[in-house]
Amino acid sequence: MGIGHMHTTPTDIRALEFAGDRLRLVDQRRLPRELCHFDCLGYEDCIFAIKDMVVRGAPAIGAAAAYGVVLAARSLAVRLAGRPAFELRAGLHKACAELKAARPTAVNLMWAVDRMAARLACIPDADLPQAGIILLKEADDILADETSRSERISLHGNGLVPAGATILTHCNTGSLAVPGPGTALGIIKAAHRAGKGISVYADETRPRLQGARLTAWELVREGIPATLIADSVAATLLRDGAITLVVVGADRIAANGDSANKIGTFMLSALARLYQVPFYIAAPVSTIDFGCPDGSAIVIEERDPDEVSSIESVRVAAEGIRVYNPAFDVTPADNISAIISEAGILYPPFSASIAALRRS
Amino acid sequence: MGIGHMHTTPTDIRALEFAGDRLRLVDQRRLPRELCHFDCLGYEDCIFAIKDMVVRGAPAIGAAAAYGVVLAARSLAVRLAGRPAFELRAGLHKACAELKAARPTAVNLMWAVDRMAARLACIPDADLPQAGIILLKEADDILADETSRSERISLHGNGLVPAGATILTHCNTGSLAVPGPGTALGIIKAAHRAGKGISVYADETRPRLQGARLTAWELVREGIPATLIADSVAATLLRDGAITLVVVGADRIAANGDSANKIGTFMLSALARLYQVPFYIAAPVSTIDFGCPDGSAIVIEERDPDEVSSIESVRVAAEGIRVYNPAFDVTPADNISAIISEAGILYPPFSASIAALRRS
Repeated sequence: MGIGHMHTTPTDIRALEFAGDRLRLVDQRRLPRELCHFDCLGYEDCIFAIKDMVVRGAPAIGAAAAYGVVLAARSLAVRLAGRPAFELRAGLHKACAELKAARPTAVNLMWAVDRMAARLACIPDADLPQAGIILLKEADDILADETSRSERISLHGNGLVPAGATILTHCNTGSLAVPGPGTALGIIKAAHRAGKGISVYADETRPRLQGARLTAWELVREGIPATLIADSVAATLLRDGAITLVVVGADRIAANGDSANKIGTFMLSALARLYQVPFYIAAPVSTIDFGCPDGSAIVIEERDPDEVSSIESVRVAAEGIRVYNPAFDVTPADNISAIISEAGILYPPFSASIAALRRS
Repeated sequence: MGIGHMHTTPTDIRALEFAGDRLRLVDQRRLPRELCHFDCLGYEDCIFAIKDMVVRGAPAIGAAAAYGVVLAARSLAVRLAGRPAFELRAGLHKACAELKAARPTAVNLMWAVDRMAARLACIPDADLPQAGIILLKEADDILADETSRSERISLHGNGLVPAGATILTHCNTGSLAVPGPGTALGIIKAAHRAGKGISVYADETRPRLQGARLTAWELVREGIPATLIADSVAATLLRDGAITLVVVGADRIAANGDSANKIGTFMLSALARLYQVPFYIAAPVSTIDFGCPDGSAIVIEERDPDEVSSIESVRVAAEGIRVYNPAFDVTPADNISAIISEAGILYPPFSASIAALRRS
């Protein structure tokens, strides 16, 4: 039971695994203070976990929702035993809709639940009471696919890391966000595991401090020599030649290579370019939005001011001050040295390399 | 009583004032949650206040220590009444030494206490029991001098601010750090009071959050339209033309214009230069270290890792992660459009303008 066989190394943390009758999640709300699990026994628990950020990171959320559909199929089969098949089918469609609404902007969530719904549609009425078995296989496949993608990204990216490199990263892009080793942090792990003697600077990543809370936790756990810095310290490190390369993830990549990622990424890219430090984006092909021509078409989501004005529920900012809290910024393609995907490494000009990827 | 006559506007907060028998400080440890005072009845209270950062900002610390000498003179005159003058003189010298040791790296602290000691040396033995009266006049003069300097810096700087400007600033450089309106924040206040319709973006300034805690508090109090941002947001604002000018303070300015200031300042200067946004340093002439040839001679002080890994005494970073926490960074002279001092505005090449200032 579980998904252990999908991990190529013994050391990647499993942010989610299906354990017999439940989806077991690492409770990321309680990291780094304690590593404990949150068990989803029903799909409603799964919706709560996604909304409350027990689980986070687009690929991890997608996989969690897929298992949510499995949980719904199992419980509805018991509850509706002996009832007409259309009632079970209607109940499952409702569960899928509720799962998709848990975080309406997460593209992987839509994609994963839609894939589960498509599998469900192929199951004949007669087999519907056993849908849980078929759907578990589909959810396992989704998790395996995501795991495999992040492993390939990690290996491709490792090819760009010289021995002894000092790598700067931002936010959290490891096993807590992505099944498998991760994207940018997966590359860092691959280089470390390859014995390259690398070391890491991790931005704390204000306002939500994913670097301090999650990336630092993964780095310590992995035994990678690493140092945490306030985000603004990176500028001096880049200027003074202390950084060999920068690698970060992406939330959305436009057809010309412009990339939206966690706020602070653009700052790093501009300074990396100024001081001629290679700057890499690591993300699965699903992050590329082929219909989005360039960064100007990407709408910047503004988040809750409390993320800046309060920390750990303690108010730090003066009362009455306005807050501007964009969730991400856009790094222009010109600042990006390469985009590392599971399909290989894309180089500039990205308009051409992304178009070629789309054709293939 | 009090120092009200030294303030040219009714609205500057008085971070310190001498009130009859005590030095009254705004307790900056409790801002922005509450505005309350910390009364120093003896010079030992004053040492505690400087060490524990009840009072902060180099010019404010210097003035506070000057009043500490006054408190020492008064209490020793009572305690040693009828004793030989040399005993009182020796006691005062000991008090001066203890005050100077409260924060050994603060240049203004040394300078202010030395000025008080020099005044003391001119008082004949016969007048020594009344030294408190003479020394109070000297401390009032120090406070008045600092106030006057920051007023002149504010007015000179205001001349560089166009109507309707959107100004970006970093850390706290207002009345809480400097007697009078402040340096960089003093310029912002002067432009606002002049009816220029300006608005402000304030960096929160990790790790100690002086922007969120103190600058935001001063801006709200003054009614200046202002928005708080995480430090890394500034990059996008500078790129997108949202900022008219940047103005910050300085801790130490080398003879060639290279300027050390709060960590994060260099990042702003590099991006401002890249996107052709004017970048100004505002600081009194006493900040210029004529004996320091350039920024490479400035040693970067590294501070307690807890400033990054804990916030409000709550641990936020993963256990076991190393932290690099430099207190400041060095902005090269090439990134600075002008240095605004009480003696006027210095323009590049700074080697020449600073040398001319020194000669005058």
